[in-house]
Amino acid sequence: MKKLFFFLLLSFLAGQFVSAQSPDVLTIRKYGNKNAGSIISEFTEFLSLPNVAVDTAGQQKNAAFIMAMMNKRGIQKVQLLNASTADTPPAVYGEVMVPGAKQTLIFYAHYDGQPVNPAQWAKELDPFQPKLFSNAIDKGGTNIPFPADGSYNKEWRIYARSASDDKAGVAAILNAYDAITKSGLTPGCNLKFFFEGEEEAGSIHLNEILEKYRSLLHPIAIGSDLWIICDGPVHQSGKKQIVFGVRGDTHLDLTVYASKRPLHSGHYGNWAPNPAMMLVKLLASMKDDNGRVTIKGFYDDVTPLTASERKALNEVPSVDEQMKKELGINNVEMRGSTLSEAINQPSLNINGIQSGNVGKLASNQIPTFASAVLDLRLVLGNDWKRQQQKVIDHIKAQGYYVTTNEPTDEEREKYAKIIKVTPGLNGSVNAQRTSMDLPIIQKVIAAVKSSYGNQVVLEPTMGGTLPLFLFEEYLNAKTVTVPVANHDNNQHAENENIRIGNLFDGIETMGSLMLIR
Amino acid sequence: MKKLFFFLLLSFLAGQFVSAQSPDVLTIRKYGNKNAGSIISEFTEFLSLPNVAVDTAGQQKNAAFIMAMMNKRGIQKVQLLNASTADTPPAVYGEVMVPGAKQTLIFYAHYDGQPVNPAQWAKELDPFQPKLFSNAIDKGGTNIPFPADGSYNKEWRIYARSASDDKAGVAAILNAYDAITKSGLTPGCNLKFFFEGEEEAGSIHLNEILEKYRSLLHPIAIGSDLWIICDGPVHQSGKKQIVFGVRGDTHLDLTVYASKRPLHSGHYGNWAPNPAMMLVKLLASMKDDNGRVTIKGFYDDVTPLTASERKALNEVPSVDEQMKKELGINNVEMRGSTLSEAINQPSLNINGIQSGNVGKLASNQIPTFASAVLDLRLVLGNDWKRQQQKVIDHIKAQGYYVTTNEPTDEEREKYAKIIKVTPGLNGSVNAQRTSMDLPIIQKVIAAVKSSYGNQVVLEPTMGGTLPLFLFEEYLNAKTVTVPVANHDNNQHAENENIRIGNLFDGIETMGSLMLIR
Repeated sequence: MKKLFFFLLLSFLAGQFVSAQSPDVLTIRKYGNKNAGSIISEFTEFLSLPNVAVDTAGQQKNAAFIMAMMNKRGIQKVQLLNASTADTPPAVYGEVMVPGAKQTLIFYAHYDGQPVNPAQWAKELDPFQPKLFSNAIDKGGTNIPFPADGSYNKEWRIYARSASDDKAGVAAILNAYDAITKSGLTPGCNLKFFFEGEEEAGSIHLNEILEKYRSLLHPIAIGSDLWIICDGPVHQSGKKQIVFGVRGDTHLDLTVYASKRPLHSGHYGNWAPNPAMMLVKLLASMKDDNGRVTIKGFYDDVTPLTASERKALNEVPSVDEQMKKELGINNVEMRGSTLSEAINQPSLNINGIQSGNVGKLASNQIPTFASAVLDLRLVLGNDWKRQQQKVIDHIKAQGYYVTTNEPTDEEREKYAKIIKVTPGLNGSVNAQRTSMDLPIIQKVIAAVKSSYGNQVVLEPTMGGTLPLFLFEEYLNAKTVTVPVANHDNNQHAENENIRIGNLFDGIETMGSLMLIR
Repeated sequence: MKKLFFFLLLSFLAGQFVSAQSPDVLTIRKYGNKNAGSIISEFTEFLSLPNVAVDTAGQQKNAAFIMAMMNKRGIQKVQLLNASTADTPPAVYGEVMVPGAKQTLIFYAHYDGQPVNPAQWAKELDPFQPKLFSNAIDKGGTNIPFPADGSYNKEWRIYARSASDDKAGVAAILNAYDAITKSGLTPGCNLKFFFEGEEEAGSIHLNEILEKYRSLLHPIAIGSDLWIICDGPVHQSGKKQIVFGVRGDTHLDLTVYASKRPLHSGHYGNWAPNPAMMLVKLLASMKDDNGRVTIKGFYDDVTPLTASERKALNEVPSVDEQMKKELGINNVEMRGSTLSEAINQPSLNINGIQSGNVGKLASNQIPTFASAVLDLRLVLGNDWKRQQQKVIDHIKAQGYYVTTNEPTDEEREKYAKIIKVTPGLNGSVNAQRTSMDLPIIQKVIAAVKSSYGNQVVLEPTMGGTLPLFLFEEYLNAKTVTVPVANHDNNQHAENENIRIGNLFDGIETMGSLMLIR
């Protein structure tokens, strides 16, 4: 009775009487508040483990840590799912079979992080020494000690690599299970847990793992009806969101070659070719002044949105002006396009460019080469190989001889413009979309709404990329993405962070999903 | 008699009977061969001292080392010429007054080097641990021990920062003095020595030092008739050269700003502006496909060559095809232009560009800013401030708001395209040319020819930059440049080196000049 009153009072305060948080959510919330100290303590220990995909030893420590977390919680069949190659970070698996359950939800998150360049992080930060701040640093937050009494403010932030992307996902999922079982609630369906270790490196062995462990994971065989992907940020409006698809992603590494040895810019300047000037002219030829890609056929192949997807897209709250203000930008790259529209188009983005040195290391030279990394996001209908080829054909049309190796002396003698083009170090992933109309999807929407007072944005696709097409291809499984991280989490870059409120909201949301019957 | 016979024989062998090496040069050569072990040993000790211009303590050690070299050779009035600021590397001065001498030659070299990025050097090299190689590394040279018997091959190379630029100059001058005096020869004129410590940082205090120590240095007061600038490389044909002028140099550091925080390239790619794309479009707008600078008025102001300069230029051996082969390039930036013609034009060169990361550090982000360093070489008639302004005006014409600071929130809100433009960290220097027709210049030409069998190239201007206009402005002094380094010395870049033969030829040339009467 007291519990119901509290629920009604809160619902009233939220102005969301009918559709506010359910009693179960409040139970989970209570657990979270009471155990915040130990939850954060375990989380920061987890964040202290370096987790760059190529660091095999570091990744194994992360996997072992997750296994320990799962064992501590009484999850069954905890095991590593290994690829055939020893240096591939394993996935970590566990399950909870619920008597009488009619379906299975598989919760996915990944524990690996993007590469770090500590020199680019704020002075007081270290990517693998999590620190607590009173707010986002760029909003004036300052470093504060972790509170001894476990009393956390929602606006505080923890800074560390993968604080948001995606160790927050692992923590939200496993703490949600803890909250349910330790509060006397019972999962409504079978639960499986799958934590990948190679997502930021393009999930290049995920297909192999899905196939190899098909008997554990296949929906037909054991009723795994839906994968819940807990990754990415919530909507920029601060509202929870459910995302039904993802953009694909592929990369090209470009290197333009000039003189074999670096030259004095005085003795040879404007006679010897400058590879940086060659590369900037090449890259500049790829977009017009309105931000449209000028590469032939770049926007072909795109599958149009369905009527319901178009409707959902129109209902997504506009955050463009808010985001422009927040990011300190006066205009957008693709002129006249909203953010929602832009992420429903394939993109071409320069991740990085480098030639010679700038700043204090700059010297009076003509560099020998210039490099850039291009990031091509894909939407439904695009094929990553075809999209790469369009860029390569464009480069050739600019007069370049394209090779996949360092040029030989013979090639140097023969061609005026030489470029090495190789696929980026990460794998390539096509886009994916799940229909909003499936019954299980409707239950997911209801569960997420129950945890967040109806304030839920339905996004046909997110801008980011997850290897969701693989689940369709190898397991014929449906996926839906339910992110928890704050949108301003600096994921993939320096100063990555998680807002405390988002971590605990995430626990509530994941818990609500586990209660689906 | 024996000496004369030997001279005639050598001259005959060189096919240069009339104008081959003089007996005095052969005397100097003999000294060099005999003392190669101790000369190289002192030189490598000198190269081991870090000498980046901003490293005050390191520079003081270099200056002290040079003073010790001069004192050991019995040079008089050895002293530091200090600027008013304590952290400015001092010039090192010394003199030798010769009874009855009618004129004074001041020998100039600089002991500071360009910044180093050790990561960019070949694996087996360290910029400040000189190593001996059997040839240039890119010609298959391998690391060999310094020979215990002091027997050196001309084709061997020493790799270290400033091996060529310009500690080779200091070593050639001081060993030339040693060779003369220890071989029983007598200088034909008063000698002064001036070793600068701030040349690679733009000689920003040289004017102050020249003015402060005017009484030591002024030609009218004490008859210092000509400065011999020993810096830069010999002609690419391998021939000695005398250079009568230099290009000027000025820099602009550019930084284009986009979002205040780094963004996930999936969630924001092709909506949020990409600063790398903005910068490449801006830089691409500065040159056409034929390598001509498209900035308005860029080639105005150029003072035409005189008839004798034009004649000398036409007689410079063409090295274009040789250089293209050597550098592994098929074409040149300024299409249809010879190297000699190109360096007689002002240039615009990208020294470096950087945004985000490439290679293994690349991540899926939209960077917050993109930077480039532009190097503008100037010819006679150009003024560095005017040339900088032409570039800034061009940037403004591309729609940029130009500031000299990080943009404020107000500026970010107001302007779509924001760029910070600041003068580079190094100072700016205008071009300079000395007339070939002066009597003292004719004596210099004869002396250099005497040391090198008439194979001397007369260059109206070199592509590189030295602050020679300051000697005219502050001392009303004439200058002429007599370089010693091999042309493929990688000066200013990684893997800098000196060819042993060039160091010892340099000793002979400097010695011949000291014998001018």
